[in-house]
Amino acid sequence: MSANDSICVLGLGLIGGSLLRAATAAGRVGFGYNRSLATVDEARAAGFDADGDLDAVLARAAAQDALIVIATPVTALDPILDAIVRCAPNCALTDVISVKAVVAQAVAAHGLSTRYVGGHPMAGTAESGWAATDPALFTGATWVVGTDDGVDPHVWQSVSALAGDVGAVVVPVATDDHDRAVAAISHLPHLTAAVTAAVGGGEGALALRLAAGSFRDGTRVAGTAVPLQRAMLEANAPALLITLSETIDRLTRARDDLRNHGSVQVVADNGHRARLRYEEMAGDEPDPIVEVEIGAPGWTGDLRHQAHLGRVWRGVQTRSASPE
Amino acid sequence: MSANDSICVLGLGLIGGSLLRAATAAGRVGFGYNRSLATVDEARAAGFDADGDLDAVLARAAAQDALIVIATPVTALDPILDAIVRCAPNCALTDVISVKAVVAQAVAAHGLSTRYVGGHPMAGTAESGWAATDPALFTGATWVVGTDDGVDPHVWQSVSALAGDVGAVVVPVATDDHDRAVAAISHLPHLTAAVTAAVGGGEGALALRLAAGSFRDGTRVAGTAVPLQRAMLEANAPALLITLSETIDRLTRARDDLRNHGSVQVVADNGHRARLRYEEMAGDEPDPIVEVEIGAPGWTGDLRHQAHLGRVWRGVQTRSASPE
Repeated sequence: MSANDSICVLGLGLIGGSLLRAATAAGRVGFGYNRSLATVDEARAAGFDADGDLDAVLARAAAQDALIVIATPVTALDPILDAIVRCAPNCALTDVISVKAVVAQAVAAHGLSTRYVGGHPMAGTAESGWAATDPALFTGATWVVGTDDGVDPHVWQSVSALAGDVGAVVVPVATDDHDRAVAAISHLPHLTAAVTAAVGGGEGALALRLAAGSFRDGTRVAGTAVPLQRAMLEANAPALLITLSETIDRLTRARDDLRNHGSVQVVADNGHRARLRYEEMAGDEPDPIVEVEIGAPGWTGDLRHQAHLGRVWRGVQTRSASPE
Repeated sequence: MSANDSICVLGLGLIGGSLLRAATAAGRVGFGYNRSLATVDEARAAGFDADGDLDAVLARAAAQDALIVIATPVTALDPILDAIVRCAPNCALTDVISVKAVVAQAVAAHGLSTRYVGGHPMAGTAESGWAATDPALFTGATWVVGTDDGVDPHVWQSVSALAGDVGAVVVPVATDDHDRAVAAISHLPHLTAAVTAAVGGGEGALALRLAAGSFRDGTRVAGTAVPLQRAMLEANAPALLITLSETIDRLTRARDDLRNHGSVQVVADNGHRARLRYEEMAGDEPDPIVEVEIGAPGWTGDLRHQAHLGRVWRGVQTRSASPE
């Protein structure tokens, strides 16, 4: 566990920069590194403690026993982990990268697994860079905290406390479950948005002139910078391939139904039911995970089980704490 | 041409009810019919001239030479057209149904083609019924006006004037082009939203808990009432099948690229380019159609040609009217 509330953020783009701002606003000591010095200058001009010297920043993290948060693109992971091994191998370590299996593998390859608990705040926009950072980005967001068997309970609590401090609620999830879930609810929607946009665009200016709400909303994330989309989706290829195949199967069945029976009832019904369920969940205050003591025998499995029911971690709760 | 500004709206749901409200607000004489008397009562309680007796409403339309606007679901078309033949066969006739070929066929089968010019306001929400009506629904919307060779220029002008009076801009489009364009930019997005929602929902409560902006926006229209979606999509089956097959092909290529090369570059690039083009068009004030005199030789083809370039009809414009 970090001996204090210091955090060291590596990478000051939309997520990392917003985290530095939010954590500082929450009263924590925060400092950060960014490779591009233009971003370092922007962060400094805004009054934040930023530096372009990775080893110096990590030496400071080691001296302060800070929680290190990797917020670089997944493609920049290896040199970052090399530097952590070199300069701050004993610090608690997390990340905010949108895939978890490849990060866990890279962390393991660097011998850093025992101090690592992965994270993924489910927040983001089509924007990027320091200029898009927002200290309120995580308010009300869900923040996945990696909860595989064997993770260090102290590091887990450090990461969860950080998420809570910046306004997010924690969802404890195993690595594989995370990657499969985000393939379905984040990465696939980028592909369906891209294809929907391309099919509409292929019909020319007249069709785009007629486009209204369904096209506008359904293609929004296709406007995200392509390199960001590639980094996110390609790093989750195995899970995305499964969900993409299911999507193609469902669309093919919809086409067969429409061609053979003139009906879209099955596809429309299934989509409608799922959307209503999502709206219901989004509209309700999520139930808290209850009666799990972090570090007690079986704690990770207990957390994961309750998270599968849609619950979130808000710190230790006993069942009697909820009104009955 | 209608001898006056009277309009007779048949069907007072979201579109028809909003049109009655908007046209009345614009100073026109408007009255309407609805089969469900509950809706008639709601419209009357709001101060509008509504009736549940179709023949009586149409007799009045005939007496006033009103422009008749069919705003029922496409599935209710035949009995409505029967009544028009019986009670008001000489009135100018349009509709606001979201498909055009099947309506034109039904109108032709009732011998009403010479007085008919189809229409389709590109406005709507996931809501339905009188309670959802909004006199500002058409403000800034595009309103497709059917512009096949041989349409009556006087009726065409009546319909276009109505669209303009309620705040919409007119896009003149041939029947087949309309159906193919809306298959791509409206009907397909309903299917991709439905499938995206169903795939996400199939992953369970945990996945829906993690869903953020890409899922929320990308599946929004899956929340539309299924009967409304079915009426709209199934009536446009031939065009929708073409665009759905293209979608499946594009997703299949994306899957092959991801599986064989680990890349989503092609699909992300194509989607990004189309989305930016759409945003550019949505952000710009559309250029007006210029130098077409309604009813002059070749007027329909001239209008259609300019609409294909993304232009809209704002009444007679000469080229010198635009700043150069």
